[in-house]
Amino acid sequence: MLKVYGDSISGNCLKVKWVAEKLGAPYDWVETDVLAKATRTPDFLALNPAGQVPLVVLPDGRPLAQSNAIILHLAEGSDLIPGDSFERAKMFEWLFWEQYSHEPYVAVARFQVRYLGKAVSELEPRVVERGRAALQRLEDALKETDYLAGGRLSLADVALVAYTRVAHEGGFDLDDYPAVKVWVGRVEAELNIA
Amino acid sequence: MLKVYGDSISGNCLKVKWVAEKLGAPYDWVETDVLAKATRTPDFLALNPAGQVPLVVLPDGRPLAQSNAIILHLAEGSDLIPGDSFERAKMFEWLFWEQYSHEPYVAVARFQVRYLGKAVSELEPRVVERGRAALQRLEDALKETDYLAGGRLSLADVALVAYTRVAHEGGFDLDDYPAVKVWVGRVEAELNIA
Repeated sequence: MLKVYGDSISGNCLKVKWVAEKLGAPYDWVETDVLAKATRTPDFLALNPAGQVPLVVLPDGRPLAQSNAIILHLAEGSDLIPGDSFERAKMFEWLFWEQYSHEPYVAVARFQVRYLGKAVSELEPRVVERGRAALQRLEDALKETDYLAGGRLSLADVALVAYTRVAHEGGFDLDDYPAVKVWVGRVEAELNIA
Repeated sequence: MLKVYGDSISGNCLKVKWVAEKLGAPYDWVETDVLAKATRTPDFLALNPAGQVPLVVLPDGRPLAQSNAIILHLAEGSDLIPGDSFERAKMFEWLFWEQYSHEPYVAVARFQVRYLGKAVSELEPRVVERGRAALQRLEDALKETDYLAGGRLSLADVALVAYTRVAHEGGFDLDDYPAVKVWVGRVEAELNIA
């Protein structure tokens, strides 16, 4: 069976859980506590030299890392990946943008405030500013469309909802981004995580 | 024809050029000077609200951003993408890792030193440390294999060689990573960019 090493506080890990459940794929969840350095043990590093969760071990024993690579693999051939070549490319555009321009600010702010006990006022101004820019970019896109790619739920929505839905825990106010807020509810309902 | 908005000093932009040339796909290159803020003009922002290059405009007029999303789209169906599902997943793992754990350190150090005039000694210690960790992770992988995924040249090699080959411009010494150095030469030869 698919084995998922994940920390339940991590949106990146929850993406894998949500996709597996949406697809009805059975899996074992191995809770892996990042704050307790469970990703730095020799056993874990042998599975993923990058020392990061999520990590999956496929039924044939081969490990695979990187949340978005994992969900792409799990969802291959499903309707979570647009069939149209251009819409699929737009989905990839959002997936890479998420890891480069959204997660390092929105998720990092939330981690520092909620799990490291930093005050919102102590966050690096650059983190706050870029987190707001990322949310504004989502807002601009979601004013025009209900889903990020292909006109229906795709991995782009799954990946981007993961930290957007908890952005308030890092001091961002989703009331400033009303189309994003409605979209979060829409995606949560489709994933049964509302 | 495919139109590529790119800055020739950017490895992310060169990825697109290299893949188009490797595939024999004709394109027009529109030099777009990031330092001169050519990505912040209203015309450019209308094409890419994220204000980043590379950006391509496909022959049918639709824009697509994010270097790795663009090369995935251009290379669809070619042997730059492994046919085997697991090897393709490993390629994706490297592509996402590149944008999250390599580019923000190796490319950023090089940009600050070469284009903003910072001394290597003035770089943030975190940037240097994580850049070295990224190069070490590549070294560990490339001690075992000639290519990152699928046993032959793939988009994973193209994406990762882009900033690795100029890492010395940010103060990293590829002599410390001999397997990486040999791989850079191998990939450059295959891309005809040696």
